[in-house]
Amino acid sequence: MATINDIAEKLGVSKSTVSKGLNNATDISEEMRKKILETAVELGYTNKRLQKKEKKLCILIENMDFETPNQFGYELILGFKQMAEPEGWVVDVVPMTMEFQRLNPYGVFMMQQGYQAAFVLGFSLLDPWMQEFRTTRFPTVLYDNYMKENPHIASVGCDSQEGFDLAVKHLMRLGHTKIGLISGPLDSYILKARYHAYINAMSKYGLEVNEDYIGLGYYVSESTRTHIPRLLEKGVTAILFSHDVRAISALTECSDRDLRIPEDLSIIGFDDLPMTAYTDPPLTTIRQDRISLGKCGYYALTCLLNKVPIGSILLRAPLIVRKSTGPVPPEKSVLKIKASESISAALGKPSAPTSKRSKSKTAK
Amino acid sequence: MATINDIAEKLGVSKSTVSKGLNNATDISEEMRKKILETAVELGYTNKRLQKKEKKLCILIENMDFETPNQFGYELILGFKQMAEPEGWVVDVVPMTMEFQRLNPYGVFMMQQGYQAAFVLGFSLLDPWMQEFRTTRFPTVLYDNYMKENPHIASVGCDSQEGFDLAVKHLMRLGHTKIGLISGPLDSYILKARYHAYINAMSKYGLEVNEDYIGLGYYVSESTRTHIPRLLEKGVTAILFSHDVRAISALTECSDRDLRIPEDLSIIGFDDLPMTAYTDPPLTTIRQDRISLGKCGYYALTCLLNKVPIGSILLRAPLIVRKSTGPVPPEKSVLKIKASESISAALGKPSAPTSKRSKSKTAK
Repeated sequence: MATINDIAEKLGVSKSTVSKGLNNATDISEEMRKKILETAVELGYTNKRLQKKEKKLCILIENMDFETPNQFGYELILGFKQMAEPEGWVVDVVPMTMEFQRLNPYGVFMMQQGYQAAFVLGFSLLDPWMQEFRTTRFPTVLYDNYMKENPHIASVGCDSQEGFDLAVKHLMRLGHTKIGLISGPLDSYILKARYHAYINAMSKYGLEVNEDYIGLGYYVSESTRTHIPRLLEKGVTAILFSHDVRAISALTECSDRDLRIPEDLSIIGFDDLPMTAYTDPPLTTIRQDRISLGKCGYYALTCLLNKVPIGSILLRAPLIVRKSTGPVPPEKSVLKIKASESISAALGKPSAPTSKRSKSKTAK
Repeated sequence: MATINDIAEKLGVSKSTVSKGLNNATDISEEMRKKILETAVELGYTNKRLQKKEKKLCILIENMDFETPNQFGYELILGFKQMAEPEGWVVDVVPMTMEFQRLNPYGVFMMQQGYQAAFVLGFSLLDPWMQEFRTTRFPTVLYDNYMKENPHIASVGCDSQEGFDLAVKHLMRLGHTKIGLISGPLDSYILKARYHAYINAMSKYGLEVNEDYIGLGYYVSESTRTHIPRLLEKGVTAILFSHDVRAISALTECSDRDLRIPEDLSIIGFDDLPMTAYTDPPLTTIRQDRISLGKCGYYALTCLLNKVPIGSILLRAPLIVRKSTGPVPPEKSVLKIKASESISAALGKPSAPTSKRSKSKTAK
């Protein structure tokens, strides 16, 4: 473990200067303080005195609303605090920007503020600190992000693959075979993961994977407006969305176009935000239990603080079936018959007797 | 939640008979007691009185030695107890057999013994209780097994993919390109996972995936004896093993054949058993931190007991480099040159100047 001496030696300054830098004294230059802190981080120096004074954690949050119960981050923070505060931790919620990250190295920020560890929400792959997370020695838990090999970093999230498997199985049972995906752009770890989970689920159950069934875009309502008509033209009868917010915007878009949900199109969201129970119709969605995710975030941090080399915690992602999914539209019933047969095969069940269905097919 | 009444009604017997069955009274038949317990499990009845009397957990263990520190299960159990016992739990270690599972349903066993939850070690996919785990309502944590969708089950294990990625990268840097795998049979979840992790790692780094480089077998020394000469004939210069025990048996086998480790063949194990630091040569291996795995097993159980729907916890699997891996043998140096180039490409680094190497190639 590095000492104040090591820092002084490396910078060629006195121990008292280093001590001033580490303790925010005012009689050294800002430039020197920055050098001292950066060197302290580089050498793995831990400011025991500061850390003992106060048990402090931070939640760094970006690209995510968290002020009201209907917003995604609210319960994540609540669950984390429910675990951390009874154990004597002060938890600061710190909204973050790329600009701030560019100007302040992560390790220096953590040391300057006296944080022992951080829970990181909503970062994209482009965030400058993602590079620093590769090598940081500050215990850091990423929600919906993953950093390989660094034993000071862990991840928590929901099992996207399990969620999409359940969603695709549910739609197949309703006769759907042409199932689309509308998602945000693939510039985040989690959206990439959901994209692959969609592809895997479609392949696993023997459904056609077709680029024409996929729509990606940054702006929620614009991409809904562009992609829904295109997917419908390609014969898509059900759409998975990367987030509830996008699925809810699709409900509005469909209502504007006189498309009935679920009679004309089935829709499944991702998140189970509180409001999804009250949309028209109530939304079928994949649940992220955010209180539990927050709790697991805290648990993962305590593991890292205690040198238990946890890499990831995944929660279950159950499907909450409400009213936005229904049987495939009747005019696609030939597809439906084919689907029923392939469902039985794909889901590993004996096919139901087909005589009745064959008859109705012949009668057409 | 089902009551004694519900059980009595379903079986058409009196409440007092049900009560006798649940409390191990001696004045009812064994057959009736079994019926009562099975119905209690089926209806989701929880015997509150029994559970309040004593906080009891069990560790069910099969196919795994655990009596001495050098055996795999020892530290798993130790880590679990280190967390559970200070919180007032009694932890029973229960060796398990397939025969016992065939005769006693899991739920009945748990209820009869008064266990609130179980940590399950070493089960194969063929174990009868694996079927019951699909639907059980007893909180159950599986080490190195996975059960999808059941919110009462969670998994803990090490990240095999990260481990094999590190192992293959390490061998590539030493010039190896023909890397083999010797593993137990694919009748367990974890051996399947490691098999796929090996294939993925080879593909990811642009190395040839070849069935001839893989050897599977149940009996450790027999399969080592059969597969090592075969893999060497195919030009393999390094072998990954699914367990340290197999890698250690390979050290003996190679010594018998006057093959030098690592000069003639590089060997990597999996587990980091204590003895691997003292083999001749000391074994390079992928670490499973068993104390931490045991601790995470307990944490996952407490999550399930508190309705936090955890699905899986994966620990880091770092590579511990010792002396059983070395540069590719000189007679394979052509391969080595090619490898160096493809390593740079695969690992995403600019290729080192090749002039010196080309010269030595020409000189041959």
